[in-house]
Amino acid sequence: MHNNAPPVPTISWQPDRPSALCPGVARIIDQTCLPNAEVFLELRDSQTVWQAIRQLQVRGAPAIGIAAAMGLVLAVQNLDQNSPALLQALHKAADYLATARPTAVNLFWALARMRATAQNAVSLSPPEFKERLAQEALAIFNEDLEMCRAIGRHGAVLLRDGCSVLTHCNAGGLATAGYGTALAPIYRATEEGRSVSVYADETRPLLQGARLTAWELQRSGIDVTLICDNMAAQVMREKRVDLVMVGADRIAANGDAANKIGTYGLALLAHAHRLPFYVLAPTSTFDLHSADGAAIPIEERAAAEITEGFGRRTAPAGVKVYAPAFDVTPAALIEGIICEHGIIRKAPGATGFDLQMRHET
Amino acid sequence: MHNNAPPVPTISWQPDRPSALCPGVARIIDQTCLPNAEVFLELRDSQTVWQAIRQLQVRGAPAIGIAAAMGLVLAVQNLDQNSPALLQALHKAADYLATARPTAVNLFWALARMRATAQNAVSLSPPEFKERLAQEALAIFNEDLEMCRAIGRHGAVLLRDGCSVLTHCNAGGLATAGYGTALAPIYRATEEGRSVSVYADETRPLLQGARLTAWELQRSGIDVTLICDNMAAQVMREKRVDLVMVGADRIAANGDAANKIGTYGLALLAHAHRLPFYVLAPTSTFDLHSADGAAIPIEERAAAEITEGFGRRTAPAGVKVYAPAFDVTPAALIEGIICEHGIIRKAPGATGFDLQMRHET
Repeated sequence: MHNNAPPVPTISWQPDRPSALCPGVARIIDQTCLPNAEVFLELRDSQTVWQAIRQLQVRGAPAIGIAAAMGLVLAVQNLDQNSPALLQALHKAADYLATARPTAVNLFWALARMRATAQNAVSLSPPEFKERLAQEALAIFNEDLEMCRAIGRHGAVLLRDGCSVLTHCNAGGLATAGYGTALAPIYRATEEGRSVSVYADETRPLLQGARLTAWELQRSGIDVTLICDNMAAQVMREKRVDLVMVGADRIAANGDAANKIGTYGLALLAHAHRLPFYVLAPTSTFDLHSADGAAIPIEERAAAEITEGFGRRTAPAGVKVYAPAFDVTPAALIEGIICEHGIIRKAPGATGFDLQMRHET
Repeated sequence: MHNNAPPVPTISWQPDRPSALCPGVARIIDQTCLPNAEVFLELRDSQTVWQAIRQLQVRGAPAIGIAAAMGLVLAVQNLDQNSPALLQALHKAADYLATARPTAVNLFWALARMRATAQNAVSLSPPEFKERLAQEALAIFNEDLEMCRAIGRHGAVLLRDGCSVLTHCNAGGLATAGYGTALAPIYRATEEGRSVSVYADETRPLLQGARLTAWELQRSGIDVTLICDNMAAQVMREKRVDLVMVGADRIAANGDAANKIGTYGLALLAHAHRLPFYVLAPTSTFDLHSADGAAIPIEERAAAEITEGFGRRTAPAGVKVYAPAFDVTPAALIEGIICEHGIIRKAPGATGFDLQMRHET
C-alpha cells in the first residue's frame, strides 16, 4: 500500500493489512447520497456489490473494476469448500457480477484478471487460495492508485501557483481508487504546496460536477467554484481559468477522445479563448484499434434524465428529447494527453497524436 | 386588434372589444405552473398584478410592460371619483407597480406611457377617462403583437421548408403579447405552410427552454426537441440544425448583444460550425447610448438557483457558485439582427453593426 491515503475514500478493503486480509469487507462511500450525506456501506457478499454497481453507489470505470474484484473475494471467503470448488464458485460469481453494468471495460478486465489468479491458485489450500484472491484485489486497487498518482505527477507540472483549472463531469477520486485522473494534478500540486483553484461544470443531466467534483474538492480544502455548463464561455472570457482538464472514456489512436457530453463544446470554447485543453486518462483508456473517433459510438440516454432528473418534471410531458451521453473531442483541439507515462503531445504540425509511438515523459 | 389570435395566451384584457373595455380583468397564464399545468389567473387589482410580476407568473420584458399597463387600468376602474382624483390614484399605483421588478426597461416605459395618457385625459369624464386608459393598455398589447409579427415576417425569409433552428432560453410568445421575438419567424414560417423544427436548449439554471419554449412550441404543433445546454455543440456537429435564433435583453450601438447566460458560448459554437447566428429583438431593445457591449453590466444571480434549482439540493452545502445571469455576444459573431424594420446586416468587411444608420428591409 502507498503510505498516503488517497484524498477520497471511494472504496477500500477492510482490514487493510499486508497479511490476514481475508475474511474482510469492501467499504464504499454511497455516491447516490452525495453531496447531501456521507454514507459508508460495508459490502459483505457479491450480491450487495452487484447492487452497488448497478445502482451507481460506486461508479467510474476504475472504481467499478476494483469493486468487482473485491466482490469475488467476498463471494468465496466464507465458503467451507476445497479450492477447486471455490474456483467454481468464483467463476459463477464473476458471471453474475459481469451483468451489473454493460459499458465499463474495467469491470470485465478486473473479473478476467481475478479468474486467472484463481485458476493459478487452485492447488493452494483453501485459506491460501482466499488470501491470494484478496491480495490480487488489493493489487488492482493499489495499481490504480499508483497510476492516478503518476498522472497527477505529470499533470501537476502544468499547474503554477495561483492558477485556475476548469473541469467537466467527475474524473476525480470518486471515479477511481481515490486519486482521480483529471483531478489528480490538482491534488498533486496542492500536496506540493501550490494554490490551485477549480471551476467545476455542473454537468447536466446527471450533475456529476455539482454532486461529486464539487464535493470531493471542497472536502480536500481545494478552492472550487460551481458553474452551470452554459457559463463556461463567460468564465473563460473573464479570464477566470487558465486551462481545461478533463477525463476520457475512450481515446482513439490519433487522440480523438470520447468523454461526457459537453466536453467537445468545452474544447471548442477553450480553443476560441486560446486556453490549453488537456485530456487525462490511463493508457488502459487508449483504444489503439480505433484509428480515430469516427468509429466511437455515441450512447443515447433516457429522456427522463433530462425531463425529470431531480424528482420533479421540468419539461412538458411527451416532449421529444435528444440525450447523447458522450461526445468525441477531435485531437486537433487537444493540447496534450496526460497518462501514467507522461504528457503526450502532437508532433509539430500534426493535427493528431500518435499514441502508439510517442510517450514523452 | 389583429384578426389572428397569437399562438400563446400569455396575457389578455377581458372583455376584448373595441368599446366598453372597462371594467375588465387582465387574464394571464401562470408561467410558474408551466409546463405541468395550464393555470389562468384573472387579475382584478394592481396588487395582484404586482405579485404576478414579482413572482414571475408573468415574465419577459414586453409581457411585463403590458401587465403593468393593465394593472393601472385595474387600479382606477372601480374608483367612484372625479378624473383628477383618478389621475392621482393612477400615479400612486404606477409608483407601486414600478417596484415589482428592477431590470425590465419595458415596465418603466409602459408605466410612463400610461401616466402621460392619463394626464392628457384628465379633462374627460370619469367613465371616458377609464375607457381611454383601457384603450391605451390594449394599444400597448397590440403594438407589441404587431412588432413581433413584423420580426416574424422578416425572419421567416431565412427559414426554408424542412430546416431546423436552435434556440436558447425563451424569447417566445410567453415573453411577449403572445408571438415572441426569436420564435416569431418559426411561427410565421409554419403559418406559411413550411415545416420548421426546433432544438431548444433547456437553459440552466431556471430552465426557461425546457419549461416554456418546449411547452409553447409543442402546444402550437411545432416539432421541438429538448437538449441540455452542453449538447448544443454535438447537435451542431451532427448537422441537426441549420441556424441559431435567440432574443436579446439589450443591444449596443455596434450590435454587441446581451442575452441569457449561455448565448455567447452558443454563438462561438455556431461560428466554429459555420452556422449563421441571428439575434431577434424590437428596436426598443437597442441601447444606442452604449457604443459597445463592454459597458453592459452582467447581473449575478443567487447561488441557490444552481445548487437547489430542482427542488432538492444538488451540490454540497456552502460550495462557492458563480452565477452570471447574462452574457454579451460580440457583434462579430452575429450574422444579422432582426427587428420590426427588417434584417440588419454588417457592412462588408465590418466587424460591428451600425444600428443607428442601417435598416435593410
